[in-house]
Amino acid sequence: MLNQTEYATSTVLVQKRVFALNNLELECGSTLTDVRFGFECYGQLNSSRDNAILIPHYFTGSSHVAGRYRESDLEPGYWDLLVGPGKAIDTNRYFVIGVDCLGNVNTGNPDVVTTGPKSINPATGQIYGDEFPELLLTDSVRAQCALVDSLGIETLHAVCGPSMGSMQALTWAAVFPDRVKKVVGVIGGGLATEPYLIALLEQWCIPVRYDRTEGLINALELVTLNALSPNWGYEMFAKYKDKMAILRALRDTAKARAAVSDPESFLRLARTVQKYDIRAKADRIKAEILWVPSRSDALIFPQFAERGIGEMKSLGLRVTEFWLESDGGHLDGLHAILPAAGPISQFLSKP
Amino acid sequence: MLNQTEYATSTVLVQKRVFALNNLELECGSTLTDVRFGFECYGQLNSSRDNAILIPHYFTGSSHVAGRYRESDLEPGYWDLLVGPGKAIDTNRYFVIGVDCLGNVNTGNPDVVTTGPKSINPATGQIYGDEFPELLLTDSVRAQCALVDSLGIETLHAVCGPSMGSMQALTWAAVFPDRVKKVVGVIGGGLATEPYLIALLEQWCIPVRYDRTEGLINALELVTLNALSPNWGYEMFAKYKDKMAILRALRDTAKARAAVSDPESFLRLARTVQKYDIRAKADRIKAEILWVPSRSDALIFPQFAERGIGEMKSLGLRVTEFWLESDGGHLDGLHAILPAAGPISQFLSKP
Repeated sequence: MLNQTEYATSTVLVQKRVFALNNLELECGSTLTDVRFGFECYGQLNSSRDNAILIPHYFTGSSHVAGRYRESDLEPGYWDLLVGPGKAIDTNRYFVIGVDCLGNVNTGNPDVVTTGPKSINPATGQIYGDEFPELLLTDSVRAQCALVDSLGIETLHAVCGPSMGSMQALTWAAVFPDRVKKVVGVIGGGLATEPYLIALLEQWCIPVRYDRTEGLINALELVTLNALSPNWGYEMFAKYKDKMAILRALRDTAKARAAVSDPESFLRLARTVQKYDIRAKADRIKAEILWVPSRSDALIFPQFAERGIGEMKSLGLRVTEFWLESDGGHLDGLHAILPAAGPISQFLSKP
Repeated sequence: MLNQTEYATSTVLVQKRVFALNNLELECGSTLTDVRFGFECYGQLNSSRDNAILIPHYFTGSSHVAGRYRESDLEPGYWDLLVGPGKAIDTNRYFVIGVDCLGNVNTGNPDVVTTGPKSINPATGQIYGDEFPELLLTDSVRAQCALVDSLGIETLHAVCGPSMGSMQALTWAAVFPDRVKKVVGVIGGGLATEPYLIALLEQWCIPVRYDRTEGLINALELVTLNALSPNWGYEMFAKYKDKMAILRALRDTAKARAAVSDPESFLRLARTVQKYDIRAKADRIKAEILWVPSRSDALIFPQFAERGIGEMKSLGLRVTEFWLESDGGHLDGLHAILPAAGPISQFLSKP
């Protein structure tokens, strides 16, 4: 395994690709046509085509799991600490596929490709807006399966993802039980979105309903706050004479995020996550599961993961847990994931 | 001490009273005239006038600490578990005074009396609205001190309060160090509102700024959610086929609260709490302090209390801590306070 310095200096260049699908039948009964979403690959598919790991993303994420698109990119993909040559999800060994979900919120980011409320409805030539049909995570997973089929992959070695990515990973294992060997769910709850989180997600949406532009900034302030730890800002702002400075910092961050985000997609994707619930089909899951919650999570609280693990175990699923014990909140599943690198690497490589 | 059944069946009738003050000079430099606020008393002031305990309230609370106004009242005061004859704050022994803060949000509740944004400005004959001057907790504390003076009380045996009440209790001890012997702060942070909480309070205000009526309901949904535990709703709603039922339950609660609340007062009181910061004068505190945080608090997070206790100790203040270990969140400081009854009783009675 690489040391910290090698992690920091490693740069892998990766290319964004686009997958197109003529038709996708949705759970709600509608059919989407001309479906497109982005993906990117790391490492090589082996000759037996059994070393693929699919990585769906978190709520405001994208397919950009690791590496950089351009040498000049300031930041690598969100799980660059975890995915790359010699890293826990070792691209010398595994063929890693990052995917954009349907209805991705970052429609203003040129590196994101998605079919969602901001797309043109082929039937009308107009932007869907709130005419876009109801989307469930199962729909995104079915679209991803078409991509996996097109790559000639029958069985995924694993589906791994943080937060909303962990929901998609479990959905994969429940919908296609024979095609997923392992699941790694990071900063996830369990088999369904808990009522308290449903209510929090609703609070994210409220300002957007009042004002699509300004309200989206407000919403992304709350998203940012909920994803951070209650410790966030203490070192930086508590010593300020003007403690209100935190409000400006939060607003600047949210403003930058809102500039590339679509309010309709935000509202719809929040609803998609609220509706996540695979309890009725979870007993179909055959995959072995590694669950990696964060003890300081103030969004998907540790209680949710504890109950989720309990429910999985009570269904007889093979689940082991590894807790992130740092104090950075939900985002530790991205930025402080290194303590889980060993357990994830071992989980993926054991027979 | 009483047992659970005796607690539940005890009913003390209490009368709401009104204190009037001609002038109150505020920290901001303005002077309020015709200041009125409510208070209520339990027990008897002894002849040496040294057995008084003042109890300021939490953000959406009032002076109604214990007992009932009328036999027909469905609920007793918020700390009825703690305050009454034979209880931890024993009204056979102490003379307890509950007070309404200035700018109390429950202006539509006939049992609440407060001077705030919803009051008539004597200078104009119009409702203050956003002309109401900036209010700090120090101002409420100075008004309370005038009440204490009027009752002929020189030294308070203790100031005790939950949440925003704990902030007022510490403010009392910092502003009037020779007039407060003990402080009991329940579900409080420390000497100042932490940056993260400042940002959360700002989120409470956002919907109110969009729409004074509907937005106040939204705001009180978030207040309710933040004050509850992440476990709230699980038992009740997770098993529902329609998990979204939690949204209606939360809305019904918030709607009832909004019906008696004033949006301007809400916005201003949130700002008052954001600005709470007695760090510069905390070294003046002479009172002995008992701090009672809640381990599962998802509003004033345990980290805030840990840091607060650390800061108090580093100033040489005499502070002991007792943690509520139940899993009900911030509200455990009201509804699950009984485990702290023994420690509070002992703390108050030791010489």
